[in-house]
Amino acid sequence: MKTDRSKVRRIPKRGLYDPESIYSILDKEFICQVGFVHQDHPVVIPTIYGRKDDMLYFHGANVSRMLKNMESGVLLSINVTRTNALVLARSAFHHSLNYESVTLFGTAVLVEDEKEKIESLKIISDQVLEDRWDEVRAPNQKELNVTKVLKFKISEGSAKIRNEGVGDDKEDYSLDIWAGLLPIERSYGFAENDARLKPGIEISRSVENMHGKKF
Amino acid sequence: MKTDRSKVRRIPKRGLYDPESIYSILDKEFICQVGFVHQDHPVVIPTIYGRKDDMLYFHGANVSRMLKNMESGVLLSINVTRTNALVLARSAFHHSLNYESVTLFGTAVLVEDEKEKIESLKIISDQVLEDRWDEVRAPNQKELNVTKVLKFKISEGSAKIRNEGVGDDKEDYSLDIWAGLLPIERSYGFAENDARLKPGIEISRSVENMHGKKF
Repeated sequence: MKTDRSKVRRIPKRGLYDPESIYSILDKEFICQVGFVHQDHPVVIPTIYGRKDDMLYFHGANVSRMLKNMESGVLLSINVTRTNALVLARSAFHHSLNYESVTLFGTAVLVEDEKEKIESLKIISDQVLEDRWDEVRAPNQKELNVTKVLKFKISEGSAKIRNEGVGDDKEDYSLDIWAGLLPIERSYGFAENDARLKPGIEISRSVENMHGKKF
Repeated sequence: MKTDRSKVRRIPKRGLYDPESIYSILDKEFICQVGFVHQDHPVVIPTIYGRKDDMLYFHGANVSRMLKNMESGVLLSINVTRTNALVLARSAFHHSLNYESVTLFGTAVLVEDEKEKIESLKIISDQVLEDRWDEVRAPNQKELNVTKVLKFKISEGSAKIRNEGVGDDKEDYSLDIWAGLLPIERSYGFAENDARLKPGIEISRSVENMHGKKF
């Protein structure tokens, strides 16, 4: 995974290059930022992804400019970042952030086989909300025809993690200043029924126990 | 704000170009993804920012490759994305996400004036945690010397927002499938004292009422 391009430069001890570290961060999220060069300028676009094994999957409308760029084989830089805690030091200078981040480089290819395309869409759906795929109406032919799916092999990249307490200068520990961590948490709220929900329909299994669940 | 480059292409009715819409999203976050072209390839790096008026401020170590690239005047593409709810439709195809996103284009310049540099660092600190700056030891000369600050004028960009319910195909409303929204919430956890906290130091004002606060 480690190349000159993917090497962690700032604070190298925070860099990890093994697939397990990279996958474990990717698996906690479902939104990434994809960067590519378009007409000589950089473009960064957020998009949903799904991971299975060493592949990331992306989908969207056939007409999507981002997917057209991806499909053309341009090099992509992909970033996923989670922020876990504010690190509040005694000095302004030593304030920091506990985070987990993955940066990947590579190119994507179109998923052309229809069976693989449907499986890829399920991988993306599972990444966003497990088990939802099996509860809903599957894509019909018309919907598949207007949807594009691309896959991206995870082969070059790095994870970067800060998961530590406060690190102040020796002489600052005697200051009368509070220091510590302020965790950042993310969870699901209460599911809200669609206004047009058919009477008598109970909340589905994929959603029913999600309130308050941290992720 | 609207240019050929910053125009929202997919679902143009979701695009907004007024500064207030853009600022209000930027002000809810403090992490963005910065994309630039380095040796012909795209690089996307997450970083902390602060906004004041029509300026974004970035900081880091003098030796940071990202800041060196920024300082050289290369074009940047900046993205900030908030995910607010899963939109769970009756069909796989109509699943969506409620989100708020900002994409900006432009170049950054070094903040050279020392007074402006310190003010910029306070703007960044305020963006992460209001009032913290005044509680802590200010940067000394040595710290300022190893810190670089850049500013980026917000002049070209767009906001994109989806904040709607489920939109299913007419014939799918009769299906026996639950549909609705699953909100995503982010809040602060319980502050954790630094292990080396001086005895008798109470939690500081910037942190004391943060538990459970959504942001």
